[in-house]
Amino acid sequence: MNHPRALAEALKRPLPGALVDALRARFGERFSTAHAVREHHGRDESPFPPTPPDAVVFAHSTAEVAAVVAQCRAHKVPVIPYGVGSSLEGHLLAVHGGVSIDVSQMNRVLAVNAEDLTVTVQAGVTRKQLNEELKSTGLFFPIDPGADASLGGMAATRASGTNAVRYGTMKENVLGLTVVTAEGKVVRTARRAKKSSAGYDLTRLYVGSEGTLGVITEVTVRLYPVPEAMSAAVVSFPSLAQAIDAVIQIIQLGVPVARCEYVCENAIRAINAYSHTTLREAPTLFFEFHGSEASVTEQAEIAQQITREHGGQDFEWATRPEDRTRLWTARHNAYFACLQVRPGSRAISTDTCVPISRLSDSITGARRILDTAKFPTMMVGHVGDGNFHAVLVIDPNDPQEMDEAERLNDAIVHLALSMDGTCTGEHGVGLHKIGFLEEEAGDDALDLMRRIKRALDPDDIMNPGKIFRL
Amino acid sequence: MNHPRALAEALKRPLPGALVDALRARFGERFSTAHAVREHHGRDESPFPPTPPDAVVFAHSTAEVAAVVAQCRAHKVPVIPYGVGSSLEGHLLAVHGGVSIDVSQMNRVLAVNAEDLTVTVQAGVTRKQLNEELKSTGLFFPIDPGADASLGGMAATRASGTNAVRYGTMKENVLGLTVVTAEGKVVRTARRAKKSSAGYDLTRLYVGSEGTLGVITEVTVRLYPVPEAMSAAVVSFPSLAQAIDAVIQIIQLGVPVARCEYVCENAIRAINAYSHTTLREAPTLFFEFHGSEASVTEQAEIAQQITREHGGQDFEWATRPEDRTRLWTARHNAYFACLQVRPGSRAISTDTCVPISRLSDSITGARRILDTAKFPTMMVGHVGDGNFHAVLVIDPNDPQEMDEAERLNDAIVHLALSMDGTCTGEHGVGLHKIGFLEEEAGDDALDLMRRIKRALDPDDIMNPGKIFRL
Repeated sequence: MNHPRALAEALKRPLPGALVDALRARFGERFSTAHAVREHHGRDESPFPPTPPDAVVFAHSTAEVAAVVAQCRAHKVPVIPYGVGSSLEGHLLAVHGGVSIDVSQMNRVLAVNAEDLTVTVQAGVTRKQLNEELKSTGLFFPIDPGADASLGGMAATRASGTNAVRYGTMKENVLGLTVVTAEGKVVRTARRAKKSSAGYDLTRLYVGSEGTLGVITEVTVRLYPVPEAMSAAVVSFPSLAQAIDAVIQIIQLGVPVARCEYVCENAIRAINAYSHTTLREAPTLFFEFHGSEASVTEQAEIAQQITREHGGQDFEWATRPEDRTRLWTARHNAYFACLQVRPGSRAISTDTCVPISRLSDSITGARRILDTAKFPTMMVGHVGDGNFHAVLVIDPNDPQEMDEAERLNDAIVHLALSMDGTCTGEHGVGLHKIGFLEEEAGDDALDLMRRIKRALDPDDIMNPGKIFRL
Repeated sequence: MNHPRALAEALKRPLPGALVDALRARFGERFSTAHAVREHHGRDESPFPPTPPDAVVFAHSTAEVAAVVAQCRAHKVPVIPYGVGSSLEGHLLAVHGGVSIDVSQMNRVLAVNAEDLTVTVQAGVTRKQLNEELKSTGLFFPIDPGADASLGGMAATRASGTNAVRYGTMKENVLGLTVVTAEGKVVRTARRAKKSSAGYDLTRLYVGSEGTLGVITEVTVRLYPVPEAMSAAVVSFPSLAQAIDAVIQIIQLGVPVARCEYVCENAIRAINAYSHTTLREAPTLFFEFHGSEASVTEQAEIAQQITREHGGQDFEWATRPEDRTRLWTARHNAYFACLQVRPGSRAISTDTCVPISRLSDSITGARRILDTAKFPTMMVGHVGDGNFHAVLVIDPNDPQEMDEAERLNDAIVHLALSMDGTCTGEHGVGLHKIGFLEEEAGDDALDLMRRIKRALDPDDIMNPGKIFRL
């Protein structure tokens, strides 16, 4: 892992005085150059050391974001959008300095359109806040990346999570965006109609663009009716391959699984120690089913039958909320349980995704790679989508372990690429996966991306240094 | 409607002799400048008069497409991709002359990956051919735009159709593309992993780009398990508003309707005359349900109950294939029945889509607009998505009727735009809706699209004159 802060120091120039004056005049105390504020905005959940911006603006509206971008553009100063800071690959680090636009105070739900199953929110609204505000409507927003991320950030990184297997990712669920372009113009990427063939898909271009083409300030997403019934199931297997084969068959049968998560035996062991449970320390699948009462029963029965045919053991099924929660506690606690294996440690997560037919090979190969590690490692996976995370529990103060973690991640990514997979299923490229994206996309595809970037951000002021080298 | 052929004649220059020689040398009889071949490739299903290209190449591979594009680029000659010619808005017309690349002989299914629920096909494979070849797998490709379109063309126009309400459009179902860029380079837009956050979404950029950014030569799409059970239902209503309200409530309850089609009373009257049926001449909904035996029964029961609460009459439900077919015959025959109302006529279709909460207003408003027409008009709609088509049955030899049809379409589009809708739900912009897209997207969004076009096709050789004016 290179050292972005050193790079940043070398590249940075101080903010022009005229820009500072202009932003201070407009934003008063919502403009800050305080050390603590800058440090906070210079890091995310990646292991990179903080690389702070030169200043932070707390914006309250699209118009304010546009004003900041227009000012920054006039001075060719970088702009880095900031939501809640839960990104995982160094997306927020100010490697070229500049102004961080914090949208966390843009946290209003602007319009719930229950009949249309859509909601429009400011970019700083978090997914938990949104679902809280939707409670009385009978609708919910399903995308759950784990962290209580902002909708703007989730759109910017094309996030997904545990129930993408049923409800899709941000790509499928964003209906339209309001973005501030690199020129400080406000563009709505799409109307609120559910489908359209009217021109290039600007929405999908900005979803996953990680702030490099503009700042997302409003997001319209699809909502879903809260299912009449939900049920959960847990089942363990003698082998990973049997678990994955069961998942493949369940999906091929058209069972509309809402969540389908894999937790490896190492992680189960950690969970047993952490939660004082007595789960069988074996490859384990966690299911969730959504639908009518009859339908979730039927889904669970099919899942039980198929998992049994694939050697599944200890199938447990629950419909009451408290029992469902108990069953899923193990999965929900996996991350913290892994950290507890080694007090004072930090977890680094890989994020490959492969066609599901290659998932057994991919996870088995990753296991072999991880077996060489000197620190604890576990695996959890959104297996219905072919996406899994190896969790590397390292000592953050040991550079050798950091390097070792990089080496293992590198090997796991290359294994995924050899299987027609991707280096990132849901976390994004950020600063960390620039080299991997080069290999994954190839020169010609990357050339198209770079041309789009240059066309839409000719001065390279929008979150520069992310996704690719220009 | 302007006259593209006249425009084309004015803009066109003859093909350079060196290009003709090079293409003839490479493609032999698969290169043609014959009048009939050119005329055939200069028209689609739109009412525009044919505007033929200067030559046609029948390509057999991505490499051949790349070779043609490279040759054309060297001479700055336009390239127009051609599938089966079923587009509806003048997409294929050679308004700047050039070479039509016919991919209909690129009709091989390259890889069925049943475990991954994906298939990769050459761009010329049609949807019916694909489903025929999938028969033994237990999987199917659901997108059904009516015409037996090529997968390449469907991707290029972001097509959808009757069961998008359940399965999504081409946007959601294309996993990746192979495209030949304007420079003749071959780019794969994505790996075959089900999800990815690796860089800009080139796949979605090419889906709906109508040949203006490159030629789509291979398409990887998602497949779905053939449902264990299917059932169909038909129900008529005292009013349109009641029909739409029933649809909204059914969707809000989370019933996973597979198809949900509206047919207006005029169309039902035409169908009764055409098919000798005795359907009630009232606003009518056609449903299709997919799932397990228990699930489709449950879905139909909920639909029956809700439609009854909204004044639904004559609810008919069928599960046996022959009965389902009988029920849906009316919907399937709607287009031909409408044409039969006026022998020798031609049908022009509008294609607006609005948020479903505005659908009643939108259709009612369209009905009012159409009531001024001097020719027969009907409406059918993919109402679960807020998308409907007004069918204008005109005399193609009467320029006044053509003008009148344009005027009505114009009014219906403006009504949709005023309701946060789109000028095209699934047909695309082509030559016909350039002005509407300008209004819909606005200057700044259109400017982003134009910049992308210029960045990826600097010589403007890829299907020039479509989607927007440069």
